[in-house]
Amino acid sequence: MILEKISGPEDLKGLTLEELEQLAAETRAALVGRLSRVGGHAGSNLGVVELTVALHHVFDSPRDRIIWDVSHQCYPHKILTGRKEAYLDPARAREVTGFTNPAESPHDHFIIGHTATAIPLALGMARDRDLAGRDERVIAVIGDGALSGGEAYEGLDCAGEYRGNLIIIVNDNEQSVAENHGGLYGMLRRLRETGGEAPDNLFRALGLGYRYLEEGHDIRRLVEALRAVKDTDRPTVLHIHTVKGKGLPYAEADREEWHSAAPFHVEDGTPVHGYPVYDTTVCDSLVRLMEENRRAVVLTAATPRALGVVGDLRARWAARGQFVDVGIAEECAMTMACGIAAAGGTPVFGVYAPFLQRAYDQLSHDVCLNNQPVTILVLLPGVFGMKSNTHLGLCDVQMIAHIPNIVYLDPATREEYLQMFRYATGQREHPVAIRVPVRWREGEEDATDYSLLNRARVVRRGRDAAIVAMGSLIPLALEAADLCRERTGREITIISPRFLTGVDEALLEELKKDHQLVITLDDGEKDSGYGQRIASFYGDGSMRVTNLGISRAFHSDFNAEALLRDSGISPEGLCALINPL
Amino acid sequence: MILEKISGPEDLKGLTLEELEQLAAETRAALVGRLSRVGGHAGSNLGVVELTVALHHVFDSPRDRIIWDVSHQCYPHKILTGRKEAYLDPARAREVTGFTNPAESPHDHFIIGHTATAIPLALGMARDRDLAGRDERVIAVIGDGALSGGEAYEGLDCAGEYRGNLIIIVNDNEQSVAENHGGLYGMLRRLRETGGEAPDNLFRALGLGYRYLEEGHDIRRLVEALRAVKDTDRPTVLHIHTVKGKGLPYAEADREEWHSAAPFHVEDGTPVHGYPVYDTTVCDSLVRLMEENRRAVVLTAATPRALGVVGDLRARWAARGQFVDVGIAEECAMTMACGIAAAGGTPVFGVYAPFLQRAYDQLSHDVCLNNQPVTILVLLPGVFGMKSNTHLGLCDVQMIAHIPNIVYLDPATREEYLQMFRYATGQREHPVAIRVPVRWREGEEDATDYSLLNRARVVRRGRDAAIVAMGSLIPLALEAADLCRERTGREITIISPRFLTGVDEALLEELKKDHQLVITLDDGEKDSGYGQRIASFYGDGSMRVTNLGISRAFHSDFNAEALLRDSGISPEGLCALINPL
Repeated sequence: MILEKISGPEDLKGLTLEELEQLAAETRAALVGRLSRVGGHAGSNLGVVELTVALHHVFDSPRDRIIWDVSHQCYPHKILTGRKEAYLDPARAREVTGFTNPAESPHDHFIIGHTATAIPLALGMARDRDLAGRDERVIAVIGDGALSGGEAYEGLDCAGEYRGNLIIIVNDNEQSVAENHGGLYGMLRRLRETGGEAPDNLFRALGLGYRYLEEGHDIRRLVEALRAVKDTDRPTVLHIHTVKGKGLPYAEADREEWHSAAPFHVEDGTPVHGYPVYDTTVCDSLVRLMEENRRAVVLTAATPRALGVVGDLRARWAARGQFVDVGIAEECAMTMACGIAAAGGTPVFGVYAPFLQRAYDQLSHDVCLNNQPVTILVLLPGVFGMKSNTHLGLCDVQMIAHIPNIVYLDPATREEYLQMFRYATGQREHPVAIRVPVRWREGEEDATDYSLLNRARVVRRGRDAAIVAMGSLIPLALEAADLCRERTGREITIISPRFLTGVDEALLEELKKDHQLVITLDDGEKDSGYGQRIASFYGDGSMRVTNLGISRAFHSDFNAEALLRDSGISPEGLCALINPL
Repeated sequence: MILEKISGPEDLKGLTLEELEQLAAETRAALVGRLSRVGGHAGSNLGVVELTVALHHVFDSPRDRIIWDVSHQCYPHKILTGRKEAYLDPARAREVTGFTNPAESPHDHFIIGHTATAIPLALGMARDRDLAGRDERVIAVIGDGALSGGEAYEGLDCAGEYRGNLIIIVNDNEQSVAENHGGLYGMLRRLRETGGEAPDNLFRALGLGYRYLEEGHDIRRLVEALRAVKDTDRPTVLHIHTVKGKGLPYAEADREEWHSAAPFHVEDGTPVHGYPVYDTTVCDSLVRLMEENRRAVVLTAATPRALGVVGDLRARWAARGQFVDVGIAEECAMTMACGIAAAGGTPVFGVYAPFLQRAYDQLSHDVCLNNQPVTILVLLPGVFGMKSNTHLGLCDVQMIAHIPNIVYLDPATREEYLQMFRYATGQREHPVAIRVPVRWREGEEDATDYSLLNRARVVRRGRDAAIVAMGSLIPLALEAADLCRERTGREITIISPRFLTGVDEALLEELKKDHQLVITLDDGEKDSGYGQRIASFYGDGSMRVTNLGISRAFHSDFNAEALLRDSGISPEGLCALINPL
C-alpha cells in the first residue's frame, strides 16, 4: 500500500506514474470507506481523486497554494496532506471537517463552504505574493456548477487584467448540485466536444489563457497538463473533463442523488440507515399553489431537492415555465422573482438560510424597495438548521427583519406554515419571507388572517412571567412552563410572535397588568435579534426583560440542544429565571 | 419645437427621421438645461439620448417594457414619457427623481439604483408574459461598466437558456463610473474594432444572439437595428457604441469627472457654485499607510474618487500593484481582500454603505469566518449619507454589527478616525470596519488603544441621564446637554460607544449608580440597531432606556436634520425626555 507511506505532498514527488495511479486507487478506496461509513459530499470528491494526486505531484503545497472552490471536494486533498487517518480509521473520523480548514493543516488556506469565491481569493493571494516578492504558484480549482455564480465571473474578469502566475482549473463534471442550467453549459459542452477548440470561448473572451484536457482521470495527462501551465505568467484556465461520482457506478448514474450521501453499502449504494423519509409539507404547498395559479413560478438556486421538487414534477413545471433553476446564482433568482412579481406573477423563491445571505442586496434593493409580493421560503433557519460554520442560519432574523416593507413570518406548527404560505402567495401588498420549520410540529387548524400584521399568538395564558419564543422553541417553552407549574403551581404565559418584523404592542402592553418578567428566546443569534426589540419596547422599566439567544460566534459542529442549553435556553434554565419571582 | 408636442411615446411614432433627429437635439438641450441647473448623472444620460428616442419610436412603451439598468441614465426616457416639464421648467424640477420610479409613470417598472439587475428583472417580466399569454417585448438596457457586476453575468447565463423575446441592449460608452477594469473590456474593444466580428464573443458564448452597431448616436441606424431585433424569439444582445457625455465637449473629454455633475455653466462646464473642496482625511490616511507598508493594497469597486484616489496617485499605486479597481464587483473586492490578508498583506476596501450590502455574504463567509484582518471603510453611512431610497446607508449597523469576529468602529472626530485606521491596518486579530464620518468634526489627539475592545468614551460626565450617541450625533447630543443645563442646571452624561459590535458593560454597570435614564441615538434605523443592545443590557429594570433612531422605511429625498427631529432626535426633543427626571 502506497498511501500508508504518504504523510504529505512531498511523498508524492518521487513516485512513478504507476505508483501515482495506485495511490489514486487507494485514495479513492479510503474516500469510499469514509463516505460509506459517515456520509458527506460524494460525487465531487470521487471526481477529483486523480486531479488531486496530480496537483500534489506537480505543485509544492503548501508553498504553492491550492484553493478549492466551495471546498466540498477537498477530501482527497485532506487524505494526501497528512489527514488520511480520518478517512482510514473510523475512530478518527471526527478529526476533520468537510471543508478546508487552516486550523487542521497548513495545506488549507481558508474555511470555505460557499460557491464561486476561489478565483477572487486566489487573486488576492497572488497580489500579495507579488508585493512581498515571493514566487509561489497560486491555483484555484472551481467546478462547472460554481461557474454559474456571479462572483466566479467577477473573478475571471479581474484575472483577465492581472498579469502574473495564476492557474484556474475548471473541473467540468457536467453537473451542479442538480443538473446544470444556463447558457454557459452549452459553451462548456461545445468545448468538450471539440477538445477545447470551439469558437466563442468565454475564458478567452475575458482575456485568459486556456487549455483543455479531456482525460480528467488520466494521471499522466493531468501531470503533463499541469506542468504545461505550472509556471504561466498570466492567468490561465485549465479546463478538465471529469466524471462526478467516478468509481461508484450508482453515483455516476445518479449524480444529483449522490451529490451528498448518507452512509451506504458500498456494493450497491443502498443506505445503511434506510431510505430517508422527507417531509413533503413544503412541496405539497407548492403543488397546491401550482394547481391554483397558472402564473406562479417556483425559483431555486441549484437546490431544487431542498423544496422536494424532484423527478417528474420538476420536468413538468419547468416545461410549463413555472419552475426555474438559475444555477448557483441567488442574486439572479431574487431579482428575477422581483421581475415576475412586478409583471403580476406569483414567484416563490426557496433558499437555504445561509445562501439567502448571498442575495441580501437583491432582497433589500430589488424586492423590498419595490415592495413586490415575492414569497421567500427560508429553509433550515436557526439553531436547528445546518451545523457547519460554513453554513449557518443563526442570523436570518438579523439579516431580514430590519429591511423595510418585508413581512417575516415564523410558524410554530405545520398548520401555521400552510396558512402563512397561502397568505403570502395570495396577497400583493408585501414581500413575505417564511421561516420553514426544520422540525415540523402538528398544531390546530390555522385560519389566521395574516394580513393583520404583527399579531402574536398567545399559546398559553398565565401570569407573572411570559416566554416569547420563536416558533421552533415553542415546544421547549411549553416544557419549561410545565416544569414551572410542577414546581411552583404557577402557570406562565407562552407567546409565539409569528411576525418577526414587528412586535405586538397591544399584547405587550396588556402583559404589564399581571406580568413582571418577559423572557425572549431567539433560536439564532441574540444580538440584534427579535428579543431585543421587546427589551426596547419595555425600556421604560415597566417590565423586566431577559433576552436569551445564541452568542455571536461562528459555531460549528454543535448539538442544537446543547448550544441552546449553554445559552440558558432549557426548561431547567428558564425555570431558574422564573421561579424566584 | 417638436418636444413641445411630445407628451408620450405615442407621439414619436409618426415622426420622420429628420424630426426624430431634431427631437433628439431638443431632448439633449432639455437634459443639459436641467443638468446645468440642478446637477445629476451627466455622462450616461447624454450618451443615450439617440438610443432613447429610437427605443420609443420603435417600441410601444409601456406595453413593451424597457428596463434601465441602474436607471441613472433614464433622464431622456423621462423627458419623452410625459415628464419633460421637470427638465424644461426650473420650477418643476423636483417633480422627478434621478431614477426610474413606477409612482411617477407607467413607463417606469422599478425603482432601481444598484447595478447589474436589469437582465434578471427583464427575465422575470418575460417569464410572466409567457405564463399570462401576453406578447409584449421586454428590453433591458445595460452599460458596459455594469457588465462587470456578477449579477449581470448571472442574468446573461440564465437568458442563454431562456427561449422567448428578450432584447439586451449593451450601451458601450467605454467607461464605468471611473475607467473600466477587467478582461471583459478587452473583448468589448475587440468587438468594437471589428464591427462585432471578433472571435470569443462572451454573449455568443453564453448562447445569446448578438448584433453590433457602431453608430450609437445615429438614429436611422439605431431604428434599423432595433427593428431587426424587435421581434426576436430568443434573447439577443444589441451592442451599441456610444459616447459618454455626448454633446458636451468637456464631458466627453473627462468622463469620470462628468459621471455625475453639480450645477455648471453650459458654455465651459465650470461649476456654478465653485469647485468643491473635498476633505482629504481618508486619502491622507491611505497615503500614510502606503508609505509605511509595501504590502498594503487599497481596493475599490469602481468608485476610486470616493476615497480621493485620483490622477497620479491612482496610476502610481496601481502600477505598484497596491491599488485595485475590480469594476462594479463588490463581492470580488471583498473576497480578494480576504485573500490578500490571508497571504499576509494589508488590504483596505473602501465602499459606500449602500453598496457594501452587495457583499454581505463575502463579508460574513469569507472575511469574518476566516477572521482575516481586512479593513473596510464604510463611506457615507447613516442619515447624513446619501438621501435617495436607492442609496441608503441607514442599515449599516444592522448589516455588520451582528457578524461574528468583526470589530465595527464609529469615530466621532477626525482624530479618532485616524487612530482607528492606524489600529485597523496595524493589527492582525480581526476584520475591522470603520464608519467614515460624513461631516468631520475636530477633536483632541487620540491615542486610544483600540485593541482593548468595547470601551466607550465618556465625552462628558454628568448624572441622572446619559445619552449614548453614535459618533455623528455627538454634536447634537452636546447641544442637548447644553440646553438641559441651561434649563435645569443639570449636567447630563454623553457617551460615544466607538465600538458598535459590543457594549461597554463596565461603564453601563457604573452608570446605574447615579443615572436613571439612558437615551440611545442611532443615526440609522432604530430596529435591531445599536441602542437596542443597551436596552437588552438593562432589561433587568435597573435603568430606564429610551431607544431613538430612524423608522424602518425606505426614506427618500429627506433632510437629515428633519428626519432626525421627526424621530425625536433634536436638542429640544431630548430635553423633553430628560427634564421631567
